[in-house]
Amino acid sequence: MTTVDGDLLDRSDPLAPIRALFDLPEGVVYLDGNSLGPPLRSVRARVAATLEEWGADLIAGWFQRGWVDLPARVGARIGGIVGAEPDSVVACDSTSVNLFKALDAACSLRKGVLLTDTGNFPTDLYILTALARRQERTCRVVEPQALVDSLTPEVAVVALTQVDFKTGRLHDLRRLSARAAETDTIVVCDLSHSAGVMPIGLAETGVGLAVGCGYKYLNGGPGAPGYLYVSPSVQEMAGNPLTGWFGHEDPFRFSPRYQPAAGVGRMQVGTPNVLSLVALDEALTAFAGVDLKEVRRKSLGLTSTFIEMIDAMFGDQVEIVTPRQQAERGSQVTLRHPRAGPVVEALARKGVVGDYRPPDLIRFGFAPLFNSYKDSCIAATTLEAVLEEALS
Amino acid sequence: MTTVDGDLLDRSDPLAPIRALFDLPEGVVYLDGNSLGPPLRSVRARVAATLEEWGADLIAGWFQRGWVDLPARVGARIGGIVGAEPDSVVACDSTSVNLFKALDAACSLRKGVLLTDTGNFPTDLYILTALARRQERTCRVVEPQALVDSLTPEVAVVALTQVDFKTGRLHDLRRLSARAAETDTIVVCDLSHSAGVMPIGLAETGVGLAVGCGYKYLNGGPGAPGYLYVSPSVQEMAGNPLTGWFGHEDPFRFSPRYQPAAGVGRMQVGTPNVLSLVALDEALTAFAGVDLKEVRRKSLGLTSTFIEMIDAMFGDQVEIVTPRQQAERGSQVTLRHPRAGPVVEALARKGVVGDYRPPDLIRFGFAPLFNSYKDSCIAATTLEAVLEEALS
Repeated sequence: MTTVDGDLLDRSDPLAPIRALFDLPEGVVYLDGNSLGPPLRSVRARVAATLEEWGADLIAGWFQRGWVDLPARVGARIGGIVGAEPDSVVACDSTSVNLFKALDAACSLRKGVLLTDTGNFPTDLYILTALARRQERTCRVVEPQALVDSLTPEVAVVALTQVDFKTGRLHDLRRLSARAAETDTIVVCDLSHSAGVMPIGLAETGVGLAVGCGYKYLNGGPGAPGYLYVSPSVQEMAGNPLTGWFGHEDPFRFSPRYQPAAGVGRMQVGTPNVLSLVALDEALTAFAGVDLKEVRRKSLGLTSTFIEMIDAMFGDQVEIVTPRQQAERGSQVTLRHPRAGPVVEALARKGVVGDYRPPDLIRFGFAPLFNSYKDSCIAATTLEAVLEEALS
Repeated sequence: MTTVDGDLLDRSDPLAPIRALFDLPEGVVYLDGNSLGPPLRSVRARVAATLEEWGADLIAGWFQRGWVDLPARVGARIGGIVGAEPDSVVACDSTSVNLFKALDAACSLRKGVLLTDTGNFPTDLYILTALARRQERTCRVVEPQALVDSLTPEVAVVALTQVDFKTGRLHDLRRLSARAAETDTIVVCDLSHSAGVMPIGLAETGVGLAVGCGYKYLNGGPGAPGYLYVSPSVQEMAGNPLTGWFGHEDPFRFSPRYQPAAGVGRMQVGTPNVLSLVALDEALTAFAGVDLKEVRRKSLGLTSTFIEMIDAMFGDQVEIVTPRQQAERGSQVTLRHPRAGPVVEALARKGVVGDYRPPDLIRFGFAPLFNSYKDSCIAATTLEAVLEEALS
């Protein structure tokens, strides 16, 4: 048996009070915030207020209520979380649509080969390989460990997801970007599984473009808008292939000719989705005043606690897929188990929500803003009970 | 003075009871539903219920609450309104993003020239001309009246907005499609200013692909998702250039290889935006059991009443830009006035909301589901007062 005292660790956790902002079901240990974050308690009132604005102000709401600026305002909040320069992030569209824009823009900046790794998220791979086919470019897909060494001068664009959605492995973005600078390669990074759980420091990394998801650790709600970052160093060169009217420098002039907005604003496409942007904006208030170094410290504490308990309980009977080196780990722990699907179901019946990724992976996402050390302990002991039942 | 009795006409209007479903501010005549429709009273409770589901079910909501099927379900409702075949409409993304997908898919079906008219909406023109440049295709932009006669065999794709957002002119979609069939041209139609105010009968028109907006006459809320129609005759040939994971035949297999879903489902891209789709879904309940022929009859009644009153008041002192022939008119009336901007502002101060389109147009959109004949009368008499004050 393990001797970790979750309650004790929670009492000295400076982030512990943030959990009260969230609306989490009683008795549930929710370790799936890397798939869908839970709602803040305040989101209901915020969305209700926006519905009232719509009814009261109708068309005038766009300017009187500042709806029209939501992509920039929400983008600025996210920019703070990912350490981006001012005016370099816009919140709009889905992550997949933003990926298309970012990758196409990156391709317009450099001729040559596209590079990615097998740990990239499927939608990223689909968008990238389709783009490569259209542009008749070679697309190389290597093992994650080989990514940096595969950066050679003929590589125009390297696309990666910073934290692997399956394994939780964390890429070393600075090392990769430093190498990319030497080969004059544009880095396009998907932050979906890293934003909100660690400092990213986009402004210092040398990443050219980045995208991310609003509904995982940012807690914006099911299908919340994504976001897109364009480094100031390439903003004026990077075009948007989706030349919609909200990327125009003055949409309300209704000019028949497209003239892109200055800066990252040109990465908008259609009319901003107000309800969803407002829900995401409200969710981001949970990050106000939060030190992301503290968040990372807690994230590693939560995952390390869980890993230590699993090791103590099962030894080498359960394979931990996630790297044990903290520097190589995001904010999740993935186990391999031949009956992964039924184990996840049994855990859920006992109030511990993780998720199953085919064919044999069990994922536990740890969100430092609402998960506690006690959550880690309960998850480990519940897993022990489930696996013992399965064996008996 | 005019002798139209709005109240009398309203008493014999079979659609009059629907107005009570909408949450409209007291004392406001809202003639801008072609820009942003008002909320249904029921939308608050529906959105609040969805926020509750999110908090209670978390990740399980995707399947237990059917969030994952919202694009198809909301698409089916819209399909009913635009007269599409079953399983041919999906609700997702913005209209502009859907335009890109539709136009790119159309281009993949035919080599040759792209054709549109000057009355197309700016975002449609931007997307089309950018696509033409990328694909090194000729793009011809003709006057709306010349569109049908410009359909020659070298035209691969013709893109149009059925009702001109500025003038309210209505294209004859059947005549255009009949001619397009002769020249083997794919018709891509933007229904943003026609869906919800007239029968469109997509299944009978011969239109290849169509898109539209959720926040105008469909009342889905500011920036509501758009929709995309693909004719069953081309569904299996039409590819989606935005190969996101939700267009995959089985997104949750997380396969590294893209395999498009059967039918129109492949036109999805990223994770469905649940909050916005739910608000739009609720808005569409206003159309349940409504006969769109009746809606068209009332639409023409409202615009004709308004036009007759303007004529009686001003004679040829005020230019009516919208066609007087009912068969050539959408559901709006546009006037030209040198001081259009200030006139629209003065009208709004008196409770009549229209809108201004530079440089000299005043638009009044008539939404048969919530506007009344009395609204038409009040708008005309208020305009008379405003213009008299302006002249005095």
